[in-house]
Amino acid sequence: MKIEKRWIISFIMISIVCITGAFWPTVTENDYVLSKFGTTDHIVTADVAWMLTSSCLVLIMTPGLSFFYGGMVGKKNVISTMLQSFICLGVVTLLWAVVAFSLAFGEPVGFGSGDHFYSFFGDPTTFAFMDYVGVLPHKQLANTIPFMLFALFQMKFAIICPAIITGSFAERVRFISYLIFISLFTIFIYAPLCHAVWYPTGVLGSYFGVKDFAGGTVVHMSSGFAALAGVIVLGKRKNSQHIPTNIPFVLLGTGMLWFGWFGFNAGSALAANGTAAMAFATTTTSSAAAMLTWIFFDRMNGRKVSALGACIGAVVGLVAITPAAGFVSVPESMFFGFITALVSNSAVNCSFSKRFDDTLDVFACHGVGGIMGMILTAIFAHGEDASLLHGGWNVFGHHMMALVLVSVFTFFGAYFLFKVTNFIIPLRVSEESELIGLDLSQHDETLDPKSSAITEPHYGN
Amino acid sequence: MKIEKRWIISFIMISIVCITGAFWPTVTENDYVLSKFGTTDHIVTADVAWMLTSSCLVLIMTPGLSFFYGGMVGKKNVISTMLQSFICLGVVTLLWAVVAFSLAFGEPVGFGSGDHFYSFFGDPTTFAFMDYVGVLPHKQLANTIPFMLFALFQMKFAIICPAIITGSFAERVRFISYLIFISLFTIFIYAPLCHAVWYPTGVLGSYFGVKDFAGGTVVHMSSGFAALAGVIVLGKRKNSQHIPTNIPFVLLGTGMLWFGWFGFNAGSALAANGTAAMAFATTTTSSAAAMLTWIFFDRMNGRKVSALGACIGAVVGLVAITPAAGFVSVPESMFFGFITALVSNSAVNCSFSKRFDDTLDVFACHGVGGIMGMILTAIFAHGEDASLLHGGWNVFGHHMMALVLVSVFTFFGAYFLFKVTNFIIPLRVSEESELIGLDLSQHDETLDPKSSAITEPHYGN
Amino acid sequence: MKIEKRWIISFIMISIVCITGAFWPTVTENDYVLSKFGTTDHIVTADVAWMLTSSCLVLIMTPGLSFFYGGMVGKKNVISTMLQSFICLGVVTLLWAVVAFSLAFGEPVGFGSGDHFYSFFGDPTTFAFMDYVGVLPHKQLANTIPFMLFALFQMKFAIICPAIITGSFAERVRFISYLIFISLFTIFIYAPLCHAVWYPTGVLGSYFGVKDFAGGTVVHMSSGFAALAGVIVLGKRKNSQHIPTNIPFVLLGTGMLWFGWFGFNAGSALAANGTAAMAFATTTTSSAAAMLTWIFFDRMNGRKVSALGACIGAVVGLVAITPAAGFVSVPESMFFGFITALVSNSAVNCSFSKRFDDTLDVFACHGVGGIMGMILTAIFAHGEDASLLHGGWNVFGHHMMALVLVSVFTFFGAYFLFKVTNFIIPLRVSEESELIGLDLSQHDETLDPKSSAITEPHYGN
Repeated sequence: MKIEKRWIISFIMISIVCITGAFWPTVTENDYVLSKFGTTDHIVTADVAWMLTSSCLVLIMTPGLSFFYGGMVGKKNVISTMLQSFICLGVVTLLWAVVAFSLAFGEPVGFGSGDHFYSFFGDPTTFAFMDYVGVLPHKQLANTIPFMLFALFQMKFAIICPAIITGSFAERVRFISYLIFISLFTIFIYAPLCHAVWYPTGVLGSYFGVKDFAGGTVVHMSSGFAALAGVIVLGKRKNSQHIPTNIPFVLLGTGMLWFGWFGFNAGSALAANGTAAMAFATTTTSSAAAMLTWIFFDRMNGRKVSALGACIGAVVGLVAITPAAGFVSVPESMFFGFITALVSNSAVNCSFSKRFDDTLDVFACHGVGGIMGMILTAIFAHGEDASLLHGGWNVFGHHMMALVLVSVFTFFGAYFLFKVTNFIIPLRVSEESELIGLDLSQHDETLDPKSSAITEPHYGN
Repeated sequence: MKIEKRWIISFIMISIVCITGAFWPTVTENDYVLSKFGTTDHIVTADVAWMLTSSCLVLIMTPGLSFFYGGMVGKKNVISTMLQSFICLGVVTLLWAVVAFSLAFGEPVGFGSGDHFYSFFGDPTTFAFMDYVGVLPHKQLANTIPFMLFALFQMKFAIICPAIITGSFAERVRFISYLIFISLFTIFIYAPLCHAVWYPTGVLGSYFGVKDFAGGTVVHMSSGFAALAGVIVLGKRKNSQHIPTNIPFVLLGTGMLWFGWFGFNAGSALAANGTAAMAFATTTTSSAAAMLTWIFFDRMNGRKVSALGACIGAVVGLVAITPAAGFVSVPESMFFGFITALVSNSAVNCSFSKRFDDTLDVFACHGVGGIMGMILTAIFAHGEDASLLHGGWNVFGHHMMALVLVSVFTFFGAYFLFKVTNFIIPLRVSEESELIGLDLSQHDETLDPKSSAITEPHYGN
Repeated sequence: MKIEKRWIISFIMISIVCITGAFWPTVTENDYVLSKFGTTDHIVTADVAWMLTSSCLVLIMTPGLSFFYGGMVGKKNVISTMLQSFICLGVVTLLWAVVAFSLAFGEPVGFGSGDHFYSFFGDPTTFAFMDYVGVLPHKQLANTIPFMLFALFQMKFAIICPAIITGSFAERVRFISYLIFISLFTIFIYAPLCHAVWYPTGVLGSYFGVKDFAGGTVVHMSSGFAALAGVIVLGKRKNSQHIPTNIPFVLLGTGMLWFGWFGFNAGSALAANGTAAMAFATTTTSSAAAMLTWIFFDRMNGRKVSALGACIGAVVGLVAITPAAGFVSVPESMFFGFITALVSNSAVNCSFSKRFDDTLDVFACHGVGGIMGMILTAIFAHGEDASLLHGGWNVFGHHMMALVLVSVFTFFGAYFLFKVTNFIIPLRVSEESELIGLDLSQHDETLDPKSSAITEPHYGN
């Protein structure tokens, strides 16, 4: 088998990064450190214990997602779909450590001055290769835990975001092109958006007042709109009949996602405190409400009550409450789950959706769920000037402007990056490869060991 | 497909609950709060960190149970069996938040006065819709963690209890009837029993002196006896041949249960302290002893050493130690696992058991395991007047009276609730539905995607 | 079926151990306790919270390993391979509690005196049946957590070590012989090695200056060399064609291992502090680098990018960083993953390896990975006189001598124990049993329920 140049370049790139790592100098304490970081005395060990745990929990969501998606696709594409989620644990982790964390949380780049400084992204050199990121807590970003732990927790969010997108173009995307896209997405969409929402001077948070407790906007809206853009660029599958291969895998994936989501949401308190407990509670009840609403609403529309419906409903409830987890009460969170399940379920089944071929309904679930979460947060969030009910229409208006901006940025941004990727290496596999399935055509692997990979012809990937 | 009234009612109920949630007023600080709750100064953050983690761990037990059971049933009933566990995460969560937590831990309702007040259940209005349940710690119930966190931890116990029952009537129960039963069970059996054992004035704990560290009585005996009642009401399957479909799923489920059980048992210390560590230790050694005892005892009786046996043995060991986890030593815990494995294994294989059709031997494992745990706890528990060895026969006698009371209450209570459910909607599916399996007949789903649901006729559920 | 004496002896042994447990006297406070243990005041609750969590995380690695291995073997050996990992949770747990923990961390047995005392193993009676192991922290070994928690955390390491070995002789080992071997291995190899590296006076740590943060030497090198010895003693399979049965299981196992490895590595800080966070970080980046390096290097060599490759690469990266997790920087850890992936991948595919029949390449992954980790640690570890770069060639030379000693001890030690086991009961199953697969021949279980166990002839095990 001839080795294409694209793979040689990939190998050279990983080699350069890792060998650079061996020689990267350790930064010693200097004025920058003194001005930005606290001392180890500021560390609250219980917060460290909980954030270590939370980071583990968010990590397990990505394998969870691979089962959630992998169980839903057709038999010839299970392994490839799983690997697409899984590989994010490699690609995004390294990108994050090398440059993307710095793009998200490095010294802010923006305009204005003094009290009115708004920033769009971080300086990519500030924390390149985790410079300055160590055991001391950062005064502004997380002042009770080692800054490294904050970087790790945020890393897990960056990992799962592109993994969510994969569900939309499953069964037809070329693996190497996919790797290029998620790299571009992480650098040019995820990191700046993360900065704009969560960095203290970030424009969406500080100017528009966007409240996003645990990433409803940053993670779910961005991945939802990127999924939609991907579907449009890649086009429909040849055969879009949809019979889920392994529903127990979907149940397993849902269980793992749910389990991990407590780290995602309750961990976003960045401390082992009452807010974490409240976020845990709202997360639980929103997903429970959405799960039941989804299956009963399915039945209202003549569909059977299904395990698949219960799983999707639960995940939609989790998506919906994410931006608001620490800002609303338990009874309110039930309403979040309920209303979002109704809207997402309708979106999945409406005729407009059928025109696209979003394989696993990523936009209808994560995109619509994220939008609903952002709207509901803008209505219900507690706190001074936080939302419509606690601040009035002006606050709500600002949030809605931000919603439009985020939608435009993530959709058109992702659309552009898909086009760029497609220009470098075609995003879509050949018709023949699609026919035999991505498991065999891309990875030489199969769910059905009898049809041994060795005896099959090889197709380029 | 015509939509039956029962589903319309279900949808209306979930709608009412969730819409009520949106308008539910937040309770403000008042005299009640001042008298019952401490301040945030009383919170121990390390306890919060561990209890957040424990709550996550107990949550993952329910998906774990769905794999433990799902792998054991026949091929046509895997998904339905799994969903029966899984759906508890929806139904019981909402019930708990709305009323059942209050029934378990609300202001006590009972008789007597002053020093001799014994209560049977909590006032359902005290904490309805999580009123008063927030970041402040409750002085009596858990004085170092937010009361919300206590409510969440307890919620996970309430969720898994009805899920355990499902193994007994697997392969023949109607889904909607099952939903009704678990709702009734949670409200009328679980919540009062939980109150009677764990609330400070609860009659079983305060009068009979029952010691139940982590729910051996509350969770395992109650689910075991309810399982037995269910089997009697529902009757035998048409085809009770028993070939487990997917043993790796059983292994996975056991792993998840074991993992989660550390949250269940060590979390029941309600703190990150020495007791938690000791409970963790006894949990480990009891299950290890029971696992090995089970497989060797199987072999003594002419059966092969099997993965299924190792899994069931481990779970029985976990059940046995649950009531005593924090009260006995590590060497004693080995004996717990050993003797309970012998008794449960004999119960599974005795001719009396064969007369019933308890699909997955729930009574022989959880019922008998729970009983054995309660008896052994009444013999070995350390502490003043805690058990036979540390208090004498009088103490032991009281515990045995309590054992009889709990058995009678849970068995006949569940029997009555099954009859009530059966009166509303028949518990058992039609013979035809049973024949084609619950996966297709109840949920339109199948493990075998080739036999596409679309081409199958539909049966009512 | 006649019951062989070997099983009767097994049953008698478990009975004796557990019944002894019921009568084992509790040790009361005495001079020994006062001299060795601190008081509960020394306990740091946040460290307790994190170490409880870490112990849970390391526990889930063993089921994770059973899926990692189980998915890779042939269809007739999946359950038996899984059970071989799983049963360690029973056998090693009990052994550890009864005697092996004491052999590893009991009063040191060795030579020399005063400042120059070097020890080889612990006195097996010191902590037999967990005597003295309770809620008080041990001054020398872990002075902020209950000693019981330290014993539990270490227990989980002892459990997974023999489980790792199983991959090498999968598909041909007799179950009862395997149980004997792992018992001998735990007592005669694992416990002394653990002592020599981690006990303050242990000869490898205190004389040779070996640094092993989380068990690269203790766990991975020992299991790797034992695997190699096992392959040589057991010989090749009759049919060594290798088609993985269930790649999603491998992905699941990898996810569980990765998740658990954070407990393994970050937990080895024995505290919720900055070191734990740094170890978490290096663990993440090393595995990410190794995962990508493995798949790109596969492609350089004409193999497809595969899910299996990504999984094995990730695990190799985890193995490599284990001894150094808390001692190196994040950029350096990337290099650890990169270079170890290249070496392990080459080892897997080199012609020398093909001469053995190491079913799942345990030596090439864990053995070589452990060796590489030890060498790289000896080059890069930070701290005074810690490594080549921070101490010079003399330090490095000592570490390399230790590497040779560990290799010799574990390889020949394991070889001898395999021979002893083989003398008691043949290690290898009969040719007929191998042909029908271990699932049916050893355990009467099968992945394919249609070929019902009941109708199959029985073979001795």
